[in-house]
Amino acid sequence: MIKRFITTMSKKAATTTKTPDFLLKTPKGTKDWADKDMIIRESIFEKLTTNFKKHGGVTIDTPVFELREILTGKYGEDSKLIYNLEDQGGELTSLRYDLTVPFARFVASNNISNIKRYHIAKVYRRDQPAMTKGRMREFYQCDFDIAGTYDLMIPDSEILNILIQGLNDLKIENFKVKLNHRKILDGIFEACGVPEEDIRKVSSAIDKLDKSPWEVVKKEILEKGQSEEIADKIWTFVQHNGSIREVIEILKNSDLQNETAKQGLHEMEVLADYVEAFEIQNYLKFDLSLARGLDYYTGLIYEAVTEASAPPKNLKEKPKDLAADDDASAYVGVGSIAAGGRYDNLVGMFSNNKSIPCVGISFGVERLFSIIKQKTDLTKINSQHTDVYVMAFGNGFLKERMSISNKLWKNGINCEFLYKEKGNLRKQFEGAEKSGAKLAVILGKEEFPQGKLKIKMLGQDNNEEETIEIDDLVKIVESKLNL
Amino acid sequence: MIKRFITTMSKKAATTTKTPDFLLKTPKGTKDWADKDMIIRESIFEKLTTNFKKHGGVTIDTPVFELREILTGKYGEDSKLIYNLEDQGGELTSLRYDLTVPFARFVASNNISNIKRYHIAKVYRRDQPAMTKGRMREFYQCDFDIAGTYDLMIPDSEILNILIQGLNDLKIENFKVKLNHRKILDGIFEACGVPEEDIRKVSSAIDKLDKSPWEVVKKEILEKGQSEEIADKIWTFVQHNGSIREVIEILKNSDLQNETAKQGLHEMEVLADYVEAFEIQNYLKFDLSLARGLDYYTGLIYEAVTEASAPPKNLKEKPKDLAADDDASAYVGVGSIAAGGRYDNLVGMFSNNKSIPCVGISFGVERLFSIIKQKTDLTKINSQHTDVYVMAFGNGFLKERMSISNKLWKNGINCEFLYKEKGNLRKQFEGAEKSGAKLAVILGKEEFPQGKLKIKMLGQDNNEEETIEIDDLVKIVESKLNL
Repeated sequence: MIKRFITTMSKKAATTTKTPDFLLKTPKGTKDWADKDMIIRESIFEKLTTNFKKHGGVTIDTPVFELREILTGKYGEDSKLIYNLEDQGGELTSLRYDLTVPFARFVASNNISNIKRYHIAKVYRRDQPAMTKGRMREFYQCDFDIAGTYDLMIPDSEILNILIQGLNDLKIENFKVKLNHRKILDGIFEACGVPEEDIRKVSSAIDKLDKSPWEVVKKEILEKGQSEEIADKIWTFVQHNGSIREVIEILKNSDLQNETAKQGLHEMEVLADYVEAFEIQNYLKFDLSLARGLDYYTGLIYEAVTEASAPPKNLKEKPKDLAADDDASAYVGVGSIAAGGRYDNLVGMFSNNKSIPCVGISFGVERLFSIIKQKTDLTKINSQHTDVYVMAFGNGFLKERMSISNKLWKNGINCEFLYKEKGNLRKQFEGAEKSGAKLAVILGKEEFPQGKLKIKMLGQDNNEEETIEIDDLVKIVESKLNL
Repeated sequence: MIKRFITTMSKKAATTTKTPDFLLKTPKGTKDWADKDMIIRESIFEKLTTNFKKHGGVTIDTPVFELREILTGKYGEDSKLIYNLEDQGGELTSLRYDLTVPFARFVASNNISNIKRYHIAKVYRRDQPAMTKGRMREFYQCDFDIAGTYDLMIPDSEILNILIQGLNDLKIENFKVKLNHRKILDGIFEACGVPEEDIRKVSSAIDKLDKSPWEVVKKEILEKGQSEEIADKIWTFVQHNGSIREVIEILKNSDLQNETAKQGLHEMEVLADYVEAFEIQNYLKFDLSLARGLDYYTGLIYEAVTEASAPPKNLKEKPKDLAADDDASAYVGVGSIAAGGRYDNLVGMFSNNKSIPCVGISFGVERLFSIIKQKTDLTKINSQHTDVYVMAFGNGFLKERMSISNKLWKNGINCEFLYKEKGNLRKQFEGAEKSGAKLAVILGKEEFPQGKLKIKMLGQDNNEEETIEIDDLVKIVESKLNL
């Protein structure tokens, strides 16, 4: 519901002064959450939290804004999407863009040498919103990261295990986790003759291969100053995907022999063993075209996609003149439902004296929410938790209803009553129905003065009603509700 | 831990380029939350949420920033404390200052006629921080509000009940809830001859009577353009406090006879009945000097204070030249631990065609946290939830430890293992101790190849150790942990 209203304080003044009208809505790319959506979202948080705790995770909370310098230089081309706070005197600050950089700052500033932490919180990106596809400017991320110096690929494989277990717990179907390794990717670019300073921009072009055909991506690589020969050679590598062991085999038989790539290949071989120990190899696809946009990754990278999140084949081409504020839902897929990777140098950027290797995963809650909501029978969700409705027949009995309700509350029972001095019967039953209460406690005109109450199960096929002593109320209500 | 670091991307570059150093910290007035503090805070949220649900509350989530016009003109003198987002093109927005105005906007824009909602979220105020006293620039509020047209004082008394039950659930001791009524207060000012346009500023002077003696407040009233006679007459009223019925009696016997005050008095009489039905009258103190700063209140107002939150008598006088960014902990009390009131016109300001009366309470989580943490035995809190630590004796058995851990995880058991190929025994026991695990599952060099594991309860006075079949692992672990 969008309405116009007047921005003035007193109702009297509103009719006499002229103040500008404006739209009554949330800012572009943000939304209110309420009712059944909240129940679904909280159940996503709860399932992921249980999974995180199972693996020894502890939780932290960092401020929604950081000193601007903390975020500077961490996000590559996407830095332009950072929300700044106005300079109102004092420090320059910006809203967090993800939970990873604040985590690295937290690890460095608290001098932590190892931690497994999870963090569920909102992040902010001034991106073109695509509301119906779940691409928002304010959205939740659910992150689990492992910081600390450990043996090769052990935390990485556990993160993959957590990712897959998490999606299984949420009953997400037909998902795949695409994997690649920054060292292999960089080794490929090196072997193809891409100059070191161009590697990140060629990499970000390659990352578009999930949405665009090779011809389009090749054109972008040429535009980024690479020769036709380089581009074609890149294609001989990045077109490959398959199981980890299959792609390792392909690369071993190729002319990719530089040190960077060899290191990456060795790590992927170690990983192949561990994911088999965790029995998750069938969820994984080693995909040499996966690049991931963020600057800070240094090793294994991955993202989980489902058919529901992949860009549809018949997606409209995005008009060039689409304003940054316009909704782009018609022109984009929802992208990955979870993504992450290894970032060994980020903490070191905040700390001169030591670097703490990290690896992590971020679940995109809004995208998971869209998929899960579609499959949910909304009629079965009651967003209220009321169990008992206290009502009176034929007399107001307001203070008496209050006193009975109070007795139930004090015993931990969820209960409501109608906020009317003398509520009529229909209104009280309507209130009970709206509240979702299972049980009515009724103060009868004749019974109540004799210390008695009526109890009635609510619901269509149940007319059971009985008269009880007030002193037995709590006991009987608890047994009726199976508390 | 505050450290200096270099704001540059690559470690190599850091030694050669000159980039400005800056402090590695969170922005002024904000902090990181972690470890045991998180456990305490989450338990506060959980207790308050249970209480809110008991009264039929549903939860919502609104964006952390709102269109700037939504917040404009709602907070009186405090509007200067609102954080603005930078104008980066598009809409002008600001961080929310409380959860009440966003709630009113939510009710209006979704065309809701009645709702009981709770909302636990962060709000933002560019105030002088007083970190050790719990006055932050980013802090949590825990709000419960009832919107809808109901009979006089019924939702108000239920809100007071929720407030008191909430503080009792949190085991806050020796608190009092101060009450007053905006109509009585306005009636007093009217009776004393304060011009209508000066009422809010005189009111905000009166609100300081909990921190300053009458002489100081009187001086402020005179400075705000009122005569000595007016000021002295105000004092004959606002010095009174006591039970609701006592103060009603005093006012009825005074010369306060205007319509505004009479209306307020009638409402307080109705309230007196209801709080007795809820048996909460002994927690309440009708205090005619309570005024509350915010513009939007229209009826009953209240705040809960404890001895721990009241300003100490020997508080230092705040230096005039204390910068807005300086920590003012030495000069302020922590103020109220919860506060609220009735605001019948706020939703109407966002909606031309109808006004929805509201009443609510806001718990100040950071202040409650400070009080509760002081009373908590921190040695009894384990912020990790690990139950089992899987280790190997005399052999790496890494993939086997992974496989055993995976079996436990898949059965919902919280478990960890050391991220080393060949962890030595001491390191593994250290890991187990740090994780807080109650049980060690041990892969022995000789037992494991025969399909057997050792199980050992961890803890000082327990050396129990037994050998079991791998197939019985989950069953036995569950029984040892009483799952």
